[in-house]
Amino acid sequence: MSGLLHRPDEVRRWIAERRSADGLGVRRVPFDRMEGWRFHPDTGNLAHVSGRFFSVEGLRIRHGATEREWSRPVIVQPESGILGMLVRRDRAGEPEFLMQVKMEPGNFGLVQLSPTVQATPSNYTRVHAGRGVRHIEHFLPPRSGRVLTDALQSEQGAWFDRKSNRNIVVEAPDGVVAAPGDDHRWIPLHTLKALLREPDLVNMDSRSVLACLPLHETAERASDAGESFGASLARSLRPSDAGAPHTIGELLTRLNDVRADRWAEVRRIALGQVDGWHREADEVRHGAGRHFRIIAVTAHASGREVRRWDQPLLAPVGVGVSAFLVRRVEGVLHVLVGAHWEPGLAAGAELGPTVQCDTGDFAGLSREQRPPFLDAVLTAPEKRVRYDVVQSEEGGRFHHARSRYMIVEADAPTAAEAEADPRFSWATPGQLIGLCQSSGPVSVQARTLLACLHTLW
Amino acid sequence: MSGLLHRPDEVRRWIAERRSADGLGVRRVPFDRMEGWRFHPDTGNLAHVSGRFFSVEGLRIRHGATEREWSRPVIVQPESGILGMLVRRDRAGEPEFLMQVKMEPGNFGLVQLSPTVQATPSNYTRVHAGRGVRHIEHFLPPRSGRVLTDALQSEQGAWFDRKSNRNIVVEAPDGVVAAPGDDHRWIPLHTLKALLREPDLVNMDSRSVLACLPLHETAERASDAGESFGASLARSLRPSDAGAPHTIGELLTRLNDVRADRWAEVRRIALGQVDGWHREADEVRHGAGRHFRIIAVTAHASGREVRRWDQPLLAPVGVGVSAFLVRRVEGVLHVLVGAHWEPGLAAGAELGPTVQCDTGDFAGLSREQRPPFLDAVLTAPEKRVRYDVVQSEEGGRFHHARSRYMIVEADAPTAAEAEADPRFSWATPGQLIGLCQSSGPVSVQARTLLACLHTLW
Repeated sequence: MSGLLHRPDEVRRWIAERRSADGLGVRRVPFDRMEGWRFHPDTGNLAHVSGRFFSVEGLRIRHGATEREWSRPVIVQPESGILGMLVRRDRAGEPEFLMQVKMEPGNFGLVQLSPTVQATPSNYTRVHAGRGVRHIEHFLPPRSGRVLTDALQSEQGAWFDRKSNRNIVVEAPDGVVAAPGDDHRWIPLHTLKALLREPDLVNMDSRSVLACLPLHETAERASDAGESFGASLARSLRPSDAGAPHTIGELLTRLNDVRADRWAEVRRIALGQVDGWHREADEVRHGAGRHFRIIAVTAHASGREVRRWDQPLLAPVGVGVSAFLVRRVEGVLHVLVGAHWEPGLAAGAELGPTVQCDTGDFAGLSREQRPPFLDAVLTAPEKRVRYDVVQSEEGGRFHHARSRYMIVEADAPTAAEAEADPRFSWATPGQLIGLCQSSGPVSVQARTLLACLHTLW
Repeated sequence: MSGLLHRPDEVRRWIAERRSADGLGVRRVPFDRMEGWRFHPDTGNLAHVSGRFFSVEGLRIRHGATEREWSRPVIVQPESGILGMLVRRDRAGEPEFLMQVKMEPGNFGLVQLSPTVQATPSNYTRVHAGRGVRHIEHFLPPRSGRVLTDALQSEQGAWFDRKSNRNIVVEAPDGVVAAPGDDHRWIPLHTLKALLREPDLVNMDSRSVLACLPLHETAERASDAGESFGASLARSLRPSDAGAPHTIGELLTRLNDVRADRWAEVRRIALGQVDGWHREADEVRHGAGRHFRIIAVTAHASGREVRRWDQPLLAPVGVGVSAFLVRRVEGVLHVLVGAHWEPGLAAGAELGPTVQCDTGDFAGLSREQRPPFLDAVLTAPEKRVRYDVVQSEEGGRFHHARSRYMIVEADAPTAAEAEADPRFSWATPGQLIGLCQSSGPVSVQARTLLACLHTLW
């Protein structure tokens, strides 16, 4: 067996088989039924008794300009892990990715496709770390393969306090992977693109890593020289300022202006000190039911391997929306980048999608309170909507955290409105991919959309 | 009066005049004599009663691989400020910088040259911020000048917890600055280079901003096409991978490998929880007298303007050493970059000098404990030492924090030894300058050395 799955239905069958063979189940429990997790008697922080994994603590935010103060719970995970993707090329030069089928308790559908490796230093550096991480050797020095991209990337700044992961893609030398193993299969790029058109199959980590990979040569080879959407997109993927209305430097200066303007003091506090949130027997929730809840689950596998573990998860309210408005100018696609501030981002704000709503909270807002361009995206006529698929965020920390990811062509009035707002800038996808390769400030939601854009050429 | 100082002695006279005219004085006081600063009764944190400026708290570090734990005091300053340099060109195209003469209580010599603007958002964004910051308008949107470089840069990770400042250089349109004002003068690049050859005149912020400025065209115009040190240096300043042994991508992968290897969990704690440090009436000190002390000073000006303020300062032990080993390969200069871990750096480690000792602590270490290449630098014969000048760090937070900055040509055995150690990489100065322009991970000590390198062409 070659370990290669060529068609989307083969991948779907593999995922379904694993789901049933592993006899997976997850159910909610009250906090006091979680084995190994405790609320600290003094601080109220929710942490594992070993001090490992992650904890739920608080952030206090004081907005610089208005001095308004508020606080909220946050997931603290000090370790920066590796998200590693192994890639090889078939005879025609098409990339094939070594994907892992991975169960996470918070995953919608339990099992999704993850990169070749998801691991933290405590998994792979400690002497007695137990079972090694399969395929990790390709990502640690000395490497036999060629590093195609390698950079630290941030994750959700509304839910994590300064979390980052190393996103790395390594091209495998011929035949270096003799046997992928039960949890891994090679999947060609065109198949992965097909799977990205479906909801909840390609996990957040996979999308994040894919976004950092320069694919402009592959895309341009696959596209015609015409004026179609796909051809414009392929031309826009070059990691340079060609065809872009602003240089990378100008984009970063506009971002730095927003950072200064939106400056806030953010301080880690104890979960017990967070105002306006309530701890019940089975959830920590916001007084008005907004944002998210912290819940507890017990997860078990009863198939090939019997194991059970408990953990907290962050469960967002409703389904979020992240969207790029796009336009075509002289045969090059531009996306409208928004500078979005979040308390858990190290530098305060990053370049993200046009619309970035992590939760479905916006439903209750008045028209004035709604984020810019949200309605332009949600009410766009069908013919302008190029992509509209629900995808899941990290299932190891979030419970059914899902967002509608959309790519929508802007009409002329909307495009004109965007020009006037300094928080928004037109950029080429290639500029963002270039930034991703140098640990540039591109949000995880924007990286998902960059991965989804590849479904359109 | 043109507001231009052309010769180094004119600048020295200006600084000396200001020093005496302002009747400046700083003296140490016990903590309880500091007006407005208190140790918090519960946490022991040293902070201003208003909650503004900065505070002295603690960090607890748990090293990932060994699980060794330790703690230390740290300066916490959540605000990210602006270090802004205004530049114009004379008729021959030489850059002239609008420098500020600035008194800081911790400065060696009290008064040094700072960038055009040093300001935090609370200085320039708040409605009732009082007296405006002179020349700030050139650095805030909408700008009339052209932005030459603009990026967030880190500062000392051994003394600050994740401090960063926006380093920005703006080219002024002709005649936009009618009157520099008493505290500002235009100083040409060649004069600034001469001042950088002297100790303690060009402050850390100025050096940091200068390091981010692409000067390769100016340097190449000024240099011959030969094989001299200066010509090799000028060619090495191009912000590209040309003539470099590694690509930027390879440099960053090697850095990420060190980050993973040297991974540690760093957590902010209260100053009162720091182990092994003692609080006396007039200092917080390490039990064995190592690292640094926290002291208190009262500063006063009795000249044109009468004012007085008190504040804590961090006073390092002894004089540090930061040095680049350099070599010339085929007419291009390479510097030996070290990946140095510090607890207060957001990503754990950054690209720094070959040798980076913030304090004089190394004097007591055995040969085995001494940092790599320290002795190679300190014992190099005079003819290999290209630069050896003591410069000061930030005088607003540190008291007489001084380091010997050195640029030393490596002999063949040392250069060979460097090749074998994955923590060290040969790079061109231009690669580092390019990284600085994109908020890349180049340490503040390395940025000082990049500024000092310009004295050698």
